[in-house]
Amino acid sequence: MYDIVIIGAGPAGLTAAVYALREKKKIVILEKETIGGKITSSSNVENYPGFKSISGMDLANNLYEQVINLGGKIKIEEVVKIEEGKIKKVITDENEYEAKSIIIASGSKYKKLGLENEEDLIGNGISFCTVCDGAFYKDKIVCVIGGGNSAIINAVYLSQICQKVYLIVRKENLKGDKLVINSLEHKENIEIIYNANVIKYITENDELTGVLIKQEKNEEKIEVDGVFLAIGQIPEIDYTNNLINLNTEKYIISNEDCKTNIKGIFVAGDVREKKVRQLTTAVSDGTIAALNALNYLKEEI
Amino acid sequence: MYDIVIIGAGPAGLTAAVYALREKKKIVILEKETIGGKITSSSNVENYPGFKSISGMDLANNLYEQVINLGGKIKIEEVVKIEEGKIKKVITDENEYEAKSIIIASGSKYKKLGLENEEDLIGNGISFCTVCDGAFYKDKIVCVIGGGNSAIINAVYLSQICQKVYLIVRKENLKGDKLVINSLEHKENIEIIYNANVIKYITENDELTGVLIKQEKNEEKIEVDGVFLAIGQIPEIDYTNNLINLNTEKYIISNEDCKTNIKGIFVAGDVREKKVRQLTTAVSDGTIAALNALNYLKEEI
Repeated sequence: MYDIVIIGAGPAGLTAAVYALREKKKIVILEKETIGGKITSSSNVENYPGFKSISGMDLANNLYEQVINLGGKIKIEEVVKIEEGKIKKVITDENEYEAKSIIIASGSKYKKLGLENEEDLIGNGISFCTVCDGAFYKDKIVCVIGGGNSAIINAVYLSQICQKVYLIVRKENLKGDKLVINSLEHKENIEIIYNANVIKYITENDELTGVLIKQEKNEEKIEVDGVFLAIGQIPEIDYTNNLINLNTEKYIISNEDCKTNIKGIFVAGDVREKKVRQLTTAVSDGTIAALNALNYLKEEI
Repeated sequence: MYDIVIIGAGPAGLTAAVYALREKKKIVILEKETIGGKITSSSNVENYPGFKSISGMDLANNLYEQVINLGGKIKIEEVVKIEEGKIKKVITDENEYEAKSIIIASGSKYKKLGLENEEDLIGNGISFCTVCDGAFYKDKIVCVIGGGNSAIINAVYLSQICQKVYLIVRKENLKGDKLVINSLEHKENIEIIYNANVIKYITENDELTGVLIKQEKNEEKIEVDGVFLAIGQIPEIDYTNNLINLNTEKYIISNEDCKTNIKGIFVAGDVREKKVRQLTTAVSDGTIAALNALNYLKEEI
C-alpha cells in the first residue's frame, strides 16, 4: 500500500515526489516512457530560474538524482487504469498498486498529422525530438512542421547539423516569442514556407523521401530525409477512463489547488487545464499537488 | 518609459524579469533591500527542483546572474507609491518611473512581536536571519521564537554554532513538516519550551540579556544573548495605498492569472493571496505575471 502513487516522471511528478519524500511518505513514481518528460527534448533551457542555460537532459538528470537521493523509486510501467475508493488502485501493464492517494502528472504527448503511414515512419524518418534524433540527419535535408516556439527552436538547432532545413508553417506567420523568432536571423540554410499544409508523406521502399505540401490549390513535393513534428501536444489521460473530469480539450479540470473531482486524486503539470505551460508552472503544480496530498493523508485517511 | 517596472528582486520578480528580457522588453527591477529576497536567509534549499541542495544565497546569486546576463537592471530603491493610468507611475524614494505595466513582486516581511524596544534591538540582539547573523552568537545562548518549519530549521542551524538554543513555541506542539521536526532529534543543546509567550525583551545598558516568557500564569526570565524571530510574515504592500485590492490579511487578491484589479498591474510571489508559498510557486507566479504583462503590452498598449 502506497501513500501516494505518482503517475508521470516529468518535472511536475518529480517535484511532487521531492515534497512527499521529504515527508517520509511511501511513494512510487510510474513512468511509461522517459524520465524527465518532454524537457528531455529541449537542447537548451534558458527560462528556468537558477540556470542561465542547461540542457533539458541535464535538468532532467538533476531532478532524477534529487528524487533518487531522497529514496524515491521510479518504475517504467504504463498505467492503463485507475480506480477510485478510499483505497485507490493504479493498474499498469505489469502490476497493480494500492494507493491512499494519487497524483496525476502524466503530461501531454506530441500531436501528429494523422496521415497515412505516419505511425510506421515515427522513429524511422519522423521524429519529435531534435536533440535525440537530429544527429542522424547530419548534412541531410529535413523539414520541421509547425509555427510556434518549439518548431522554430528545432529548426535553428537542426540548421547547425543539417544541409538544409525547411520550416513548414500552416499559417501566414510564426507565432513564437520575439527572441525565439529572432534566432532565425542569418540562418541561411533555413527556408520558411508559409500557408502550407503537409498532406502526404512520400516514401520509396518504405523509406521517407519527401513530403507533399499544399498551398492554396498548388501541390508541391519537397524532398527531405527527415521530418520533425512540432505542432503541439495532447494530454495523456486515456487511463483515467471517464473517472476524472476533463475540459473540451481533454485536459484535467482543476483549480490552482490541483484537486480533481475525485477526493484524494490530484493533478499537476501539463495534463492540467491551465493557461501557462512552462517548467516553472509544472514544478509549482507538483509542489501544490504534493502538499495537498499530504494534507489529505493527514486529515482524511 | 519602461515596458514593465518590476517591484521586488526576489525569485518571483527575477523570474518575471527573465521572461520579459527574453522578449526584449525595456524593464527595470526595483528592490529596497536584498536581491534574492527571503531565500537569501535559507542556509539550505533542498526542495527546489534541479538542485539537490543549494544555499539560498547561491540560488539568489544564480538568479541575479541570469537576469544580468540577459541585460536586466536592478536598482536598490524603495517604492513609496504607485499610480494608475494608461501610463502608470512608480515613485521611489529617489526617482519616478513611467511604466506601461507593473509587476508587483515585493514579497512579505518578517513579523515582529510588537514589544517595547523591539525596533531598537533589531540588528543588535534580535535577528530574522540565522545564516546572516548566526555566526555572531558562537558559543553563546540564543532563543528562536516560533513553532513552524522556519523556526525549527533556524534552531537546528544555530545548535551547531551556539552553546544552547531555546525554541520558544506559543502553542502546545510544533507545526512543521515531519522531516523538519525529525531534524531536532539528538540535538541535545536545543530545549523546546511549549505554551510560552515572550512578553518582554530584557536589556542591560541597551544590550539584550534575556526574554521574559509567560506560561499560563507563570512568568520566567530566560537569559539569552540573542533572539531569532521566526513567527511568520506580512505582505509588503504599503506603497499600493488602496489602489490594489487586498484580502483581510493584506495579501493582494488575484486568481492564478496573477492579474490584480487594475488593468496592466500584475502580482507575483509571496505578496499574492494564495495557499502555498514556496520557491516553486513564486517562480511560477513570476512566469505567469510576465507572460500576462507581455500579452497586455501586445494587446492593450
